[in-house]
Amino acid sequence: MKVEHLRHIGKQLFAEIGKTRLKPFTSESLGKGAGGDRTFPIDKKAEDIIISSLQSLNEPLSIISEEAGLEEIKGGGRKVLIDPIDGSKNAITGIPFYCTSIAVSDGDSIGSIFMGYVINLLTGDEFWAEKGKGAFFNGERIYTQKDDIFYLIAYEAQSPKNDIPKIMKLLAEAWRTRCWGAMALDISYLAYGAVSVFVTPSLSRSFDFASGYLLVEEAGGVFTDINGKSIDSVEIGLKRSAPLLASGNKQLHEKALKLLNM
Amino acid sequence: MKVEHLRHIGKQLFAEIGKTRLKPFTSESLGKGAGGDRTFPIDKKAEDIIISSLQSLNEPLSIISEEAGLEEIKGGGRKVLIDPIDGSKNAITGIPFYCTSIAVSDGDSIGSIFMGYVINLLTGDEFWAEKGKGAFFNGERIYTQKDDIFYLIAYEAQSPKNDIPKIMKLLAEAWRTRCWGAMALDISYLAYGAVSVFVTPSLSRSFDFASGYLLVEEAGGVFTDINGKSIDSVEIGLKRSAPLLASGNKQLHEKALKLLNM
Repeated sequence: MKVEHLRHIGKQLFAEIGKTRLKPFTSESLGKGAGGDRTFPIDKKAEDIIISSLQSLNEPLSIISEEAGLEEIKGGGRKVLIDPIDGSKNAITGIPFYCTSIAVSDGDSIGSIFMGYVINLLTGDEFWAEKGKGAFFNGERIYTQKDDIFYLIAYEAQSPKNDIPKIMKLLAEAWRTRCWGAMALDISYLAYGAVSVFVTPSLSRSFDFASGYLLVEEAGGVFTDINGKSIDSVEIGLKRSAPLLASGNKQLHEKALKLLNM
Repeated sequence: MKVEHLRHIGKQLFAEIGKTRLKPFTSESLGKGAGGDRTFPIDKKAEDIIISSLQSLNEPLSIISEEAGLEEIKGGGRKVLIDPIDGSKNAITGIPFYCTSIAVSDGDSIGSIFMGYVINLLTGDEFWAEKGKGAFFNGERIYTQKDDIFYLIAYEAQSPKNDIPKIMKLLAEAWRTRCWGAMALDISYLAYGAVSVFVTPSLSRSFDFASGYLLVEEAGGVFTDINGKSIDSVEIGLKRSAPLLASGNKQLHEKALKLLNM
């Protein structure tokens, strides 16, 4: 299992799904996926492409995917965490901001992720990271923001009513806020240096942030839960586990934590 | 001056600018534009393409553009309102969500706009509207949301600290919020039916919302200032004029106004 395998899958997804322009609310749900959200044809199509491509590798793998749940190849092995379409709500309403996220782990917790891959399905732009080898955008090394100014704070809120008040003191200090609706892209653009801080007070699932976690770590950023606690030992799986905070560097992270705990 | 002229300009912009991937903060500002924001090379390049294309039409036109300010062709005539790059902050940090917006008016106020055009510079997708003839996405007629549920509320905030509290009661009722950082696209996707309500408590400039205004009106939506007052008589120009509220339909608009005035 190499980055090239994930890139090969990404290119297939971009070719087969990237040109899709869905009209708002014309897509019927196929029911709920293993991750608890509704599955739409676009999610299912992306997942089918990824899983069949992984099967053709002929390696023992344990797949954890938002729609299908758990699936073992050749008796199971390294864990592959898949979010076939991150930003499904954007995708099904025709908003051009969504991606696919794939992460690979040789253990049971977030800390054992050693490869992460995200492809923006609208532009074909790719982000990837390998443990100890750095983070990349279309093949070029990327780094997080260096100074401690809150130029841009990105957030996601599953419940605006409950979530925004929890982070309002932090948002208030941002030059600009963004809520793009695709967590893996929010985090990827943080690794890229375009986002100062990413925060989500809602509980997220490991496949939502697994690849982003490694991208941020390898690009020089900090990624913890919303209280500043390490998420390395968070178990990989389908259940919602942690509210998240990621920052371009330690100074930004400490400033953000202070505001969140005021 | 026909929609085809604007589409021709759009295709040029997409070809020459759409593939640009800027690295965060590597772009030096060229100083402040006529609209008060800083001008970056990408803004200037887009504006140059648009203005030289309009000049070649050989029609009397009065151009009002974010960077160049006022420019008359053949003694001046119909007003053309241009935002060369809407979502400049996204563009200059490498975030793939920005567009060009062009509107044409035969009078001095927003109500006299008779043609609006928006092109998403990342996907090449085009939105346009002609007064009395409807709103279109890539040539297909589009309509705003029909029911009165706040599925998705999009907002922009020039100052998160001042602006978000003003709209918090409305945001709290949304199933999801979005802040994409490109007002003309926010409004275009409302005309498309993907956004229930768009709100910005900051004062906006006429070229920021001119094309979106016609798109929403022609797609069946409602577009006023944040207090529900008509913006038809708002003067076209470079100065910041109105905080805005747009909704998919009258019921959504009334519900939103009630929450904003609580």
